[in-house]
Amino acid sequence: MTRVGIVGTGLIGASIGLALRRDGVAVRGFDLDPARAQEAARRGAPDDTAPDVASVAADADVVIIAVPVGHVAELVIRALDAGAPVVTDVGSVKAPIVDAVEAARPDRAAQFVGGHPMAGSEQDGVDGADPDLFVGTTWVFTPTERTDASAFSTVRRLLAPLGAEALAVTPADHDRLVAVVSHVPQLAAATLMDVATNGEAEPATLLRLAAGGFRDMTRIAAGHPAIWPDICVANRDEIVAALDGYLVALGDVRSLVAARDRAGLLALLERARAARQRLPVGPAGVEALVELRVPVPDRPAVLAEVTTLAGSMGINIADIEIVHSVEGGGGILVLLVPASDVAAFEAALTGRGYHHSRRALP
Amino acid sequence: MTRVGIVGTGLIGASIGLALRRDGVAVRGFDLDPARAQEAARRGAPDDTAPDVASVAADADVVIIAVPVGHVAELVIRALDAGAPVVTDVGSVKAPIVDAVEAARPDRAAQFVGGHPMAGSEQDGVDGADPDLFVGTTWVFTPTERTDASAFSTVRRLLAPLGAEALAVTPADHDRLVAVVSHVPQLAAATLMDVATNGEAEPATLLRLAAGGFRDMTRIAAGHPAIWPDICVANRDEIVAALDGYLVALGDVRSLVAARDRAGLLALLERARAARQRLPVGPAGVEALVELRVPVPDRPAVLAEVTTLAGSMGINIADIEIVHSVEGGGGILVLLVPASDVAAFEAALTGRGYHHSRRALP
Repeated sequence: MTRVGIVGTGLIGASIGLALRRDGVAVRGFDLDPARAQEAARRGAPDDTAPDVASVAADADVVIIAVPVGHVAELVIRALDAGAPVVTDVGSVKAPIVDAVEAARPDRAAQFVGGHPMAGSEQDGVDGADPDLFVGTTWVFTPTERTDASAFSTVRRLLAPLGAEALAVTPADHDRLVAVVSHVPQLAAATLMDVATNGEAEPATLLRLAAGGFRDMTRIAAGHPAIWPDICVANRDEIVAALDGYLVALGDVRSLVAARDRAGLLALLERARAARQRLPVGPAGVEALVELRVPVPDRPAVLAEVTTLAGSMGINIADIEIVHSVEGGGGILVLLVPASDVAAFEAALTGRGYHHSRRALP
Repeated sequence: MTRVGIVGTGLIGASIGLALRRDGVAVRGFDLDPARAQEAARRGAPDDTAPDVASVAADADVVIIAVPVGHVAELVIRALDAGAPVVTDVGSVKAPIVDAVEAARPDRAAQFVGGHPMAGSEQDGVDGADPDLFVGTTWVFTPTERTDASAFSTVRRLLAPLGAEALAVTPADHDRLVAVVSHVPQLAAATLMDVATNGEAEPATLLRLAAGGFRDMTRIAAGHPAIWPDICVANRDEIVAALDGYLVALGDVRSLVAARDRAGLLALLERARAARQRLPVGPAGVEALVELRVPVPDRPAVLAEVTTLAGSMGINIADIEIVHSVEGGGGILVLLVPASDVAAFEAALTGRGYHHSRRALP
């Protein structure tokens, strides 16, 4: 029976706990706030609670750190130091965490796999916990050249039943992309809501006029703000860069409006519409999978190279396994990927100099 | 039997037609595109079609102009010239339309009531027509000091069964407020979608990472862009002003992030959250109404003064009627407003020097 330790029993930690327990995994939980850990246990998110991080880590196969982003690296290190064989986290910013762990524990960092489930809820804390929170979402992993393939495989397999697609990207790419699709949208929504209402002479009228579009655009501004200052500090450079890009683009739009440039406005709106329509709709669902076997030299860097190559193409890693060769130092990386993506991925692998074999699954 | 003429049988015109016919109103339709008018008639949006605007207007009690915003004023004038006793429109920008009609037909402008239902759909045209499109939404009217109270009452009563709350605001206030809650959000969403995907090295990855918040924020960017260039031109000054306000505020947020100002970021996010939570949730539903009777001198300006006073407080006008005094030049404006708003509204009326009586409805 797999034993999992969860550090931090808020919305994400408790949701993972509920889902894992449903799958028959034994879950111990710890939270800096003992009342929150007790409440999570009462709801069955962990089976029981532990008095500290070391106790959680000592007898777990995998430890999941689910605390605010500013405290993740420190707790990953404590879990590794306490002997946890595999550690992952759910922090919204990855490079500062991964860098800190690799710098502090170069010898043990291979056992840490950075993670970020792209799921949340306007509801905060244990009250919003839901074992189905991750169904149909994307769970990002950020393996590096130091990451052990078996550790990645263990984490991926543990979390696969939670129903999210897995995407591997580098920590730096993750932080740049989430600045664009998550952090700047959050700030843009809050700012829109703020300028719409503050200083408005007729706020009641304005609120009455707020139709569906405005409601959609500002919905995320209704979420709990507490996590965002830390995220903004942790991902400062990427957020500033993405905000600068947005400010320049909005300034261009302002110029189009001021110039009454109908054609320019239409071109922008049509580009945006086409891009919006390319957003993947819902989960991939039950899709045929193909197994790719990639013989690799026995150096961890290959794991990150191959999986983030898939991630850069938006390709879900349905399963991953490392099979060590009996006769030598090498091994075989076994990936399951959607059949619809496999041709493009095979071409990319070949382009990078990898040989591989494939077989369709029955 | 009330006879209504609808000019423009697209999404809004056809939806109004379907709803009115369900209420037993006789509806004739005209569209510059005869095929679109025929298709709307086939779906029962108008009972039948007319060959031109004059034919629609000639035997109608009310004419509704539901064409793109750049053509509304011209068609309102044609309907008035053809003898329509009351004309309203559904244009997304109001001051340019109202000003053009009052300037061109000062003697007939009293019979025109500017309108704007704050409802729409990502679906365009007759295909998206829905008699329930307006249920629970807000329908803005923009009476001016020239507007005839009976014309306003006729339009309000005709449209009341469509299920929208009625809010009266001045044309200038309307245009300023919709720039903030509709036009700038539309442009901001399109720009966000555009900068997120154009020039991105890994668009497939980015689209996979786009979780619920990004989807909500960019949903309106999926709508048909065709109407927006005209709206941007018609409401140019207000949109530029609102965009400037948004740009300044976003620049301030950028400074907070760059300065790692946790407290400043938290304050912004908390203000925005509180404002978002004040957005009215859904329709008011079955609410007790109170009748207010306001004796008014017989000059049209009072209609706009009293109703836009209510509108500036976000107060729905459930019904409006003008009762002319038998013995003199004056009359009585009879308003039905929600019981929960009546005390504040009465205080405001008294503050403006109006006397009134009230009675609760059984």
